[in-house]
Amino acid sequence: MLKIFEMAGVAFFSLAGGIEAERKGMDLVGITVIAFITALGGGTLRDILLDRHPLFWTQNPDYSLIILAMAVLAALIKRFKPLPLTDRAVLVPDAFGLGFFTATGVAVSFDSGFAPFIGVFMGVVTATFGGVLRDIACNEVPVIFKRGQLYATCSFLAGLAFWACHAFGAGRPSCLLICILTALVIRLLAVRYDISLPA
Amino acid sequence: MLKIFEMAGVAFFSLAGGIEAERKGMDLVGITVIAFITALGGGTLRDILLDRHPLFWTQNPDYSLIILAMAVLAALIKRFKPLPLTDRAVLVPDAFGLGFFTATGVAVSFDSGFAPFIGVFMGVVTATFGGVLRDIACNEVPVIFKRGQLYATCSFLAGLAFWACHAFGAGRPSCLLICILTALVIRLLAVRYDISLPA
Amino acid sequence: MLKIFEMAGVAFFSLAGGIEAERKGMDLVGITVIAFITALGGGTLRDILLDRHPLFWTQNPDYSLIILAMAVLAALIKRFKPLPLTDRAVLVPDAFGLGFFTATGVAVSFDSGFAPFIGVFMGVVTATFGGVLRDIACNEVPVIFKRGQLYATCSFLAGLAFWACHAFGAGRPSCLLICILTALVIRLLAVRYDISLPA
Repeated sequence: MLKIFEMAGVAFFSLAGGIEAERKGMDLVGITVIAFITALGGGTLRDILLDRHPLFWTQNPDYSLIILAMAVLAALIKRFKPLPLTDRAVLVPDAFGLGFFTATGVAVSFDSGFAPFIGVFMGVVTATFGGVLRDIACNEVPVIFKRGQLYATCSFLAGLAFWACHAFGAGRPSCLLICILTALVIRLLAVRYDISLPA
Repeated sequence: MLKIFEMAGVAFFSLAGGIEAERKGMDLVGITVIAFITALGGGTLRDILLDRHPLFWTQNPDYSLIILAMAVLAALIKRFKPLPLTDRAVLVPDAFGLGFFTATGVAVSFDSGFAPFIGVFMGVVTATFGGVLRDIACNEVPVIFKRGQLYATCSFLAGLAFWACHAFGAGRPSCLLICILTALVIRLLAVRYDISLPA
Repeated sequence: MLKIFEMAGVAFFSLAGGIEAERKGMDLVGITVIAFITALGGGTLRDILLDRHPLFWTQNPDYSLIILAMAVLAALIKRFKPLPLTDRAVLVPDAFGLGFFTATGVAVSFDSGFAPFIGVFMGVVTATFGGVLRDIACNEVPVIFKRGQLYATCSFLAGLAFWACHAFGAGRPSCLLICILTALVIRLLAVRYDISLPA
């Protein structure tokens, strides 16, 4: 189940990353590398920080194939314009990715025996640092560091929700689902009602 | 003793990082993440390069709590303005952090059985790469790469001082103290008398 | 043989990196750090991703000495101007570095028992991410992400050539040489005839 969620997060994030790179006018190499960095960056950083080896995507070509497929899909979306490539086009796949990656990040840290505060921290790292590394690679200030609609905060609250469920003795599937829903709902509400942190 | 010095370095660097992020007008997420990157970036990179796991800050919530406290302190300093937030405000905590982190970086490398040249190298990495990563995350050319008052050089000379003391058979506490003092004194002199490397 | 190739790649890349940093007007610290990042960044990232420890350059001062020598050579080239520091001056050492690092990256991954697709991937990472990290550290969009003459693609094709030779049962030296030649020839042809990926 963790693996399916991780693959879903990879798919959503690489699609969002590919669309983003398309919009910046990068060439095929740039789009592919940005899709890889966006999709695998957060989980890879988590695994390096927690010393979990071999890295999840080195043992299974499925991750790479999903990312390549999503990069092609992003190119097709651009070519045939079935939907306009606004900021909104990236929003929904990105919000799903945020939920899936927070959930797998927290779960993996708990399974590796780290303390709850590290688990929540790693959930946020897994979910947000793919995007941070993408923005750094594109030579921009990472979008999550700037004032704006809640993003990292959604992941943080979802991580706390996972922790709370876990502490109350809920089973793993419930923890994962509640975590994903928390991130998804708060993120979409934050965008819909323009909610940001107070200055 | 190493651990106390590491915590002191974390405190000074996260305060300096938090003040820096405040000055750039980042929101609470940005300030917290920048404080974490500045304080833990150099030591984390050192430990990943030397394969020292688990990472020092994952086993002990004290580091995270110190950083959060310093981020709040930085916010309070900004709100109540007990002192003006000039470049100079960051200077002294940063110079202390430079000394503490160089000392712990060299000591940790020596304890892990690496050669002296790697020890000095890792002292510089520990002391300077938190700042480098902070500047990269803020989308700026890292301040230590630009011509200016000695910074990385102070850390390098302090690392050599540690090595010299160690080679002359001095005890660990002497090595650490001489290293910290070397970095602190050279750094403050470089700022006071505007000393930089020849072009 | 692998080690000699790795040292050759380090020499070529640190020379190219040092010349690049010279051209940007960095001071001695900047030039040295950029030479280190360009030369060791790709191989270090590969080894961290594959969990190969201790890192190759920590066990042998030769790598550091080569890089320092190349930084001095870059400074001498600038001072005495035996040849003009155009883009072209960096081109040839860089193309050799690209070939050597792709070859060692693929070989090391195969030796560590990873699948061929990871081997080719790691060849590209080894060969290109020193430059990506250099560009990020210089606060620029990495040159390989921008439309332009084939670069990462040369490394990718060279990695495929290694894989093909390996699959056909060729010995290690043949695989290495064919890989290096493939990268070198395609890269120089791409620059000579201005070949880039289709938009």
